[in-house]
Amino acid sequence: MTKAKNATPNRPLARVPRGFLDRRAQTLAAERDVVEKVLQVYELWGYERLDTPSFEYADALGKFLPDQDRPNEGVFALEDDDGQWMSLRYDLTAPLARFVAQHWDGLTKPFRRCAAGPVWRNEKPGPGRYREFWQCDADCVGSPRAEADAEAIAMGAAAIEAAGVQRGHYVVNVSNRKLLDGLLAHIGIDLEDTQKRLGVLRAVDKLDRLGPEGVELLLGHGRKDESGDFTKGAGLSSPAIAQVLAFTAAQKTTRALTLDALSQVVGVTPLGQEGIEELAAIDATLKALGVGEDQALFDPAIVRGLEYYTGPVFEAELLVPTIDDKGQKVRFGSIGSGGRYDDLVMRFRGERAPATGFSLGVSRLLAALAATGQERTSLAGPVVIIVLDQNAIAGYMRMAGELRGAGIAAEVYLGTSGLKAQLKYADRRQSPLVVLEGSEERANGVVTLKDLNLGAQLAQSIETNQAWRSERPAQIEVPRANLVIAVQDMLARCR
Amino acid sequence: MTKAKNATPNRPLARVPRGFLDRRAQTLAAERDVVEKVLQVYELWGYERLDTPSFEYADALGKFLPDQDRPNEGVFALEDDDGQWMSLRYDLTAPLARFVAQHWDGLTKPFRRCAAGPVWRNEKPGPGRYREFWQCDADCVGSPRAEADAEAIAMGAAAIEAAGVQRGHYVVNVSNRKLLDGLLAHIGIDLEDTQKRLGVLRAVDKLDRLGPEGVELLLGHGRKDESGDFTKGAGLSSPAIAQVLAFTAAQKTTRALTLDALSQVVGVTPLGQEGIEELAAIDATLKALGVGEDQALFDPAIVRGLEYYTGPVFEAELLVPTIDDKGQKVRFGSIGSGGRYDDLVMRFRGERAPATGFSLGVSRLLAALAATGQERTSLAGPVVIIVLDQNAIAGYMRMAGELRGAGIAAEVYLGTSGLKAQLKYADRRQSPLVVLEGSEERANGVVTLKDLNLGAQLAQSIETNQAWRSERPAQIEVPRANLVIAVQDMLARCR
Repeated sequence: MTKAKNATPNRPLARVPRGFLDRRAQTLAAERDVVEKVLQVYELWGYERLDTPSFEYADALGKFLPDQDRPNEGVFALEDDDGQWMSLRYDLTAPLARFVAQHWDGLTKPFRRCAAGPVWRNEKPGPGRYREFWQCDADCVGSPRAEADAEAIAMGAAAIEAAGVQRGHYVVNVSNRKLLDGLLAHIGIDLEDTQKRLGVLRAVDKLDRLGPEGVELLLGHGRKDESGDFTKGAGLSSPAIAQVLAFTAAQKTTRALTLDALSQVVGVTPLGQEGIEELAAIDATLKALGVGEDQALFDPAIVRGLEYYTGPVFEAELLVPTIDDKGQKVRFGSIGSGGRYDDLVMRFRGERAPATGFSLGVSRLLAALAATGQERTSLAGPVVIIVLDQNAIAGYMRMAGELRGAGIAAEVYLGTSGLKAQLKYADRRQSPLVVLEGSEERANGVVTLKDLNLGAQLAQSIETNQAWRSERPAQIEVPRANLVIAVQDMLARCR
Repeated sequence: MTKAKNATPNRPLARVPRGFLDRRAQTLAAERDVVEKVLQVYELWGYERLDTPSFEYADALGKFLPDQDRPNEGVFALEDDDGQWMSLRYDLTAPLARFVAQHWDGLTKPFRRCAAGPVWRNEKPGPGRYREFWQCDADCVGSPRAEADAEAIAMGAAAIEAAGVQRGHYVVNVSNRKLLDGLLAHIGIDLEDTQKRLGVLRAVDKLDRLGPEGVELLLGHGRKDESGDFTKGAGLSSPAIAQVLAFTAAQKTTRALTLDALSQVVGVTPLGQEGIEELAAIDATLKALGVGEDQALFDPAIVRGLEYYTGPVFEAELLVPTIDDKGQKVRFGSIGSGGRYDDLVMRFRGERAPATGFSLGVSRLLAALAATGQERTSLAGPVVIIVLDQNAIAGYMRMAGELRGAGIAAEVYLGTSGLKAQLKYADRRQSPLVVLEGSEERANGVVTLKDLNLGAQLAQSIETNQAWRSERPAQIEVPRANLVIAVQDMLARCR
């Protein structure tokens, strides 16, 4: 009351922060559906839910985002009252590592964990690129076995299919960082030269976007992009570059054939050999779990940006061609990804704690469903009870209560407008039908049900089918006492 | 790999930020259950889901937290790259007001909205007091009608019951800020004197905690608390204080009786009259919606801390006596609350946009369920397939796949320990049964199923019932081909 009079022309502008998003019922229903289905798969595979908070202490979270050019950026951070810096989590994996380290002694290991929730990236927003988005993760901590990696891959594929992406429309590409490291060692590059090693990893990671020619430049002296910016290269010799490119091109049509091809191009080092043996064990387990070549393939070109991966890495890719707003064919990007990160818990404990996992992006999954024509049908709104008589509102409220009692979503119009505006309101609410009771109807003990779906259909069709129309009347009068049954009946016919 | 060698003794400490919480499977299952049930009620009442992002611009969010002593505190805020300040939302209502103002022209009104999600308060954490917690809200924007307030109250009660709190164990207390304002006007206090008016509101809000004696001091010259801190009073005269205290004590056993009593103590002002008429309309609608006196009562002592309320206010209270850790009887506090906030959207638009809503605290609901003995039973873990033979792991993986195919949560032990540790693992995972297949069993085409629930029960019971024991064997051998059926059978007997 006092505020009303204090209102000034200096009003705040109602706007959403840049890179953030309001999500309405239709989107949320689709998201909820995907999240529930993915979590059900994870739980079926024995992964138990664990949610960590939004915030972690900055030192506990660490800096593992792929953006090397801005090492201090990428997270939302603030200083707490006591001077400690806290950051909003940028993924669900780093907080899991903190949890595991914190509870190591009391934790049943291997610890299989799943979670779904928002993560935050303090990045420049762009089309389809938000600063808050949901991930669904499953991780197994405490198993050094390649079988755990295979399980993550198989479960990821099962989750993608449960979410609605059909087999054949996606594939999980799998590689192993030890292969590329093995090759680098074979070529004679010092793996302790972190900058050189990461330079090679980052160059290979851009194969999709830049093609072999661009990667060749990044592996050598460097590359100038369209805007004229120059990225320094990893400085490999021409023969070394040729060997790396031959390695990235070693994918064949089956996992077994790719394994054969890899042993030719990786060179003989203990590390490369380990990488190949791990992939062979992954292949055997994928077979035992019934994962076909149409679900998971080996692809040496996969490296993944995150620095914390130490062994097998995976990336789920949509195989359906996608078209952008301008009608251009575009790369869809990944639906999800994962890999082994044996050193992440060690940051806290000083001892290795082997771990592997898979992460699905919820909005990526929804986009994949849209791209493959698997979108959900639109939500129906509630039954709307029209207020024809302001003094009879208690009676309208009673009607709504009766309908809800039968599990039918219902509401009374509580605005101040007349009949025409109320019908428009019901239509925009995607209400399947409205209930009308004027004073005359009330005196006669009846109500009128108006089928809004049918009305919309009739309005749309040029030719109205009279026979069909009479079979399904757009409007009926029923005894007030039969309200619930009559509404149920009309809803059944609407669907 | 390189990181392993770079690890230093200066390791970060694995700890959760203060006032934040890790939540494990049992808690999350209970939370998910409560949230889903509450949202189902909201949707049944015609409220559509809308999720706003975690962040809002600080100016759009406004400052409506009850903590007047630290007006700039209470929120987590940070400066964006472009110099704009963003805050994490402290409730779901202020962001809704921003959304409604932003989309006013295109929005179907009245706009009924529901949401569930985390909110953040930058407050001093304490026992059971966290800086991140979940709320489930439903709001109706665009209706000035008291029926909309009544709907919020009735729906709040329905949601509390759907969550599992039984009728009779809670009550929604309802009042109207216009009553106290009317009384203040009647006494002769200038309502534009915001400090005095808020001083009275804040004093009355402490009735629960301080009793009438404490409130009397706060309405008068002021009060010194146990720690010696002095809070300045609202400075009312003795007769005025007596009138305010008589007003707060006017609750009777039914809504109708309280309404009668109120007309005696509020005094004759247009504002007080409006307040009483609104409560009368609320009462009529609550009756039409079947809300009894055991679900909602009028209580003039309810004011609610948030400053943005302008009319009816509600607070759901648990009626069951609760005991704290030290065995002391304690006030439980509210499960949820709400009210009318007609001016919140006006901050942006300059025009009134009437609104009302109800908010339930998810952890408060879970605490209420615990206090009333309605806690969920514990979750069962997955079937664990023991690895007796390291070389047969593909076969174990196949078993897990078959069980999952039948909808049974299952996992293969993927650690490196022996049989005894694996059985302990399965027990700690709350696995109902384990599957064992050694090389001899494999040669014979059989597997052994071991009932862990029964094992635990037998270990617990001093007298073992031999007949019952033989009826339900703790361990059976079944053909490998019958694995799924035999596990289903044993699980059915476990439950």
